[in-house]
Amino acid sequence: MKLKVKDVNLSTGGSSIAIINELDAKKLGIHASDRISIRRLRTGQQAIAVADISSADISPGQIGLFEEPLKQLGIEEGTHVDVLPTERPHSIQYISAKLEGKELTEKQIREIVVDIVENHLSEVEMTYFVAACYSSKLTIDEAAALTKAIVETGTSLGLNKKVIIDKHCIGGVPNNRTTLIVVPIMAALGYTMPKTSSRSITSPAGTADTMEVMAPVSLSLEKIKEVLAKTNACMVWGGGSLNLAAADDKLIRIRHPLSIDPEGMLLASIMAKKKAVGATHCIIDIPYGFMAKFATQESAMKLGKKFSMLGKMLGMKVKVLLTDGSQPIGNGVGPALEAFDVISVLKGEGPNDLREKSIFLASEMLQMVGEKNPRARVLEVLDSGRAYAKFKEIAIAQGGRKHIRLPKARYFYDVVAAKDGVVRQINNKAIARIARIAGAPDDKAAGLYLRVHCGDKTKKGSVLFTIYAQGRMKLDSAKSTAEEYQAVEIR
Amino acid sequence: MKLKVKDVNLSTGGSSIAIINELDAKKLGIHASDRISIRRLRTGQQAIAVADISSADISPGQIGLFEEPLKQLGIEEGTHVDVLPTERPHSIQYISAKLEGKELTEKQIREIVVDIVENHLSEVEMTYFVAACYSSKLTIDEAAALTKAIVETGTSLGLNKKVIIDKHCIGGVPNNRTTLIVVPIMAALGYTMPKTSSRSITSPAGTADTMEVMAPVSLSLEKIKEVLAKTNACMVWGGGSLNLAAADDKLIRIRHPLSIDPEGMLLASIMAKKKAVGATHCIIDIPYGFMAKFATQESAMKLGKKFSMLGKMLGMKVKVLLTDGSQPIGNGVGPALEAFDVISVLKGEGPNDLREKSIFLASEMLQMVGEKNPRARVLEVLDSGRAYAKFKEIAIAQGGRKHIRLPKARYFYDVVAAKDGVVRQINNKAIARIARIAGAPDDKAAGLYLRVHCGDKTKKGSVLFTIYAQGRMKLDSAKSTAEEYQAVEIR
Repeated sequence: MKLKVKDVNLSTGGSSIAIINELDAKKLGIHASDRISIRRLRTGQQAIAVADISSADISPGQIGLFEEPLKQLGIEEGTHVDVLPTERPHSIQYISAKLEGKELTEKQIREIVVDIVENHLSEVEMTYFVAACYSSKLTIDEAAALTKAIVETGTSLGLNKKVIIDKHCIGGVPNNRTTLIVVPIMAALGYTMPKTSSRSITSPAGTADTMEVMAPVSLSLEKIKEVLAKTNACMVWGGGSLNLAAADDKLIRIRHPLSIDPEGMLLASIMAKKKAVGATHCIIDIPYGFMAKFATQESAMKLGKKFSMLGKMLGMKVKVLLTDGSQPIGNGVGPALEAFDVISVLKGEGPNDLREKSIFLASEMLQMVGEKNPRARVLEVLDSGRAYAKFKEIAIAQGGRKHIRLPKARYFYDVVAAKDGVVRQINNKAIARIARIAGAPDDKAAGLYLRVHCGDKTKKGSVLFTIYAQGRMKLDSAKSTAEEYQAVEIR
Repeated sequence: MKLKVKDVNLSTGGSSIAIINELDAKKLGIHASDRISIRRLRTGQQAIAVADISSADISPGQIGLFEEPLKQLGIEEGTHVDVLPTERPHSIQYISAKLEGKELTEKQIREIVVDIVENHLSEVEMTYFVAACYSSKLTIDEAAALTKAIVETGTSLGLNKKVIIDKHCIGGVPNNRTTLIVVPIMAALGYTMPKTSSRSITSPAGTADTMEVMAPVSLSLEKIKEVLAKTNACMVWGGGSLNLAAADDKLIRIRHPLSIDPEGMLLASIMAKKKAVGATHCIIDIPYGFMAKFATQESAMKLGKKFSMLGKMLGMKVKVLLTDGSQPIGNGVGPALEAFDVISVLKGEGPNDLREKSIFLASEMLQMVGEKNPRARVLEVLDSGRAYAKFKEIAIAQGGRKHIRLPKARYFYDVVAAKDGVVRQINNKAIARIARIAGAPDDKAAGLYLRVHCGDKTKKGSVLFTIYAQGRMKLDSAKSTAEEYQAVEIR
């Protein structure tokens, strides 16, 4: 059927969508979400799109195209195209099969992922895939296949190094910014560590948000390679235009509305990013404890084993570390306040818990690659200032200023102890919530700064933590949230 | 945040969508699929929309609105609105819970359904609901709650009758147009039977498609009430603007891409339509057999029991009949060819299998409502021509012509027996496929006409069925499909 193109002036950011009038749809014998092939008459170029059917927006004889198919065909409004019904991608059958509880082959999973990356699946179809992976859990073989497919359809760094080190933390613990300390330590010791991190979605800051206070993190692939060639490391944002794992980015968008984290998809999502940077050795940090993502060591261990197995299947050495996630690590919560802690530790100062955890992680990495006296070597680069110098070198290579200046918040408020006693417990979730309400991560300087940790003695009226905010209203909201939740419990 | 409205000139046909620039989204602290409230500055009118975030289509300071929120607010391009982040509907949590395998309460299911009807859920969220109902099956209580919620949020016929009869067939058997025969029989006997039927999605014809050859079926609620007042019955399309079960229509659209039929949703979908017309007595016909939807009597019975239970919970008398679905019922397959069979039976002629099944169903209905000698009474109205007169009366009331004239196909082709023998089996799926490829249901006259049924003797070269098509190409495609599949198996 010959139709005249109408530019709907919208992009989906994913699927290729074409809208046709319901009368034309009837003539073509197609229903909503069926596929049509669109052929440009003069050049014969072809694109496949998901059909959307409208009774009002598009007239008979017209075809409304989103930016994706327009770009693919290189056409404009008014061009004539030939439209025919065409088969749906086979991957839809595999998604159905998974939803019915069947195990998919490596080839089938690859086909689903290729169709996701090439925008052949609609949002509804991708949602069924996520839901299927959630309800009919992925086997370890399927998770490995998904990881490989995400890597193969994404971009790789293509570093030519025998040893490439990476780390990942499952999260859930405020601050805990070990990455920004461990990377310069390892790089100062001569190891390659191309670290990509995420931004916050629901937390007060992601590693990328914290690093961004000190240097740009949204770099192109070319720029990252340049930074790596210069400094042996990088600390950048793994999302955006980088597209190391394009399929994963699209799946995360679908997972967001329900905050669905199918375990196999989570494993694949993490491991694909490690594979894409060429990691040969990787530490997975799984914090557990009260209000962490995993309440018990057993549940953390269960996930850890899957990471180890997956590592083996992907030819990557993986060491899983179960760590204390019962309270925040470091004092600052919010991008600039966390950055302050990072710089302090790199300068050889506190907070001691963040310093010790970073030393521990770096030592474990050194042991993994066969170094002797790992702790001594880590202390050497950290206490000599070589790790800090390396940090500045990396930050400057990424485009940061020579002198790091952290933004300061306009307002603050001290939350004090109601009685004499001992800090029994710090509620990670309440701490994160207060920091977010204060403005983190969008207000870089906002958040809170802990003055106590578990086991510390308090006197009535002594400061437990300070809330920082850029506006009075945000400060007040955070204040009343702090009053509502007993974030720091005193016994 | 104050934003200026841009009309994107598109409707979703469901969810209320607003597009904002990513910079504004960051300032508001919202992510894709978060909710925003949009307040019209001058009047204070408010609407809630799902936020879509764009880097290119919408400039900072603008808000792109689809037709749904524009209409709701009664505003045009250029108007200023105040935009604020707002909570997501609670129903999303219930959907998550269901996906995790939890049982939902009647209230929770109602809230999900209300949010679907009021366009508060995005397509992705509705897809998770369908997937959840598929993977974590609905209990019978949940199915009853879903049915009630669909009825309460839809439109009811509101007939004031003590006895209202309805029927439903699970489908999967070509032709089998008993509805169009049973309705006039029951109406001629003085019973009220407001029958809504579906159009074909994947079959060669739905009951509504077949009826449409003889009379309009896409009637307004007012018109349907008028037809019912005049004739005691109707045979109309249940979809479109009728909206007896608006929530169900939206869910069906989401189910289509994967052809997902969560059992509980299927039950609710069917029973809600019966409840909406006020049915007090309902027959559920479940055909089973080779190539029917249910292969064995056991599996058909299992579903049947759920219909009976659901009927009880909804205060409706339900009788489940397991019928022979091993071969097509009637000879014609395709709208006009099926209509031909319907008229023939109403005139007291063949095909005998369609006649007998219709008599059986009508007799069972009469027995349900306590009539004596049901078969005799059915034969009386059928053989006297009163049922046929009633059919014409209903068709005319619906807007049909006085004299029914069935369209005829331009081309035909006889598929003949390859050998002498006995017809062992007729493949329902192959028959449906051939009829569709010949052009049914879009070409009303297209399809096929069976000349044999199971057990019939064949001679080499004798006609098994005739394919009808409006175009040579479609005839040829159907021909080669017929050659590929052995639709009629001779032993």
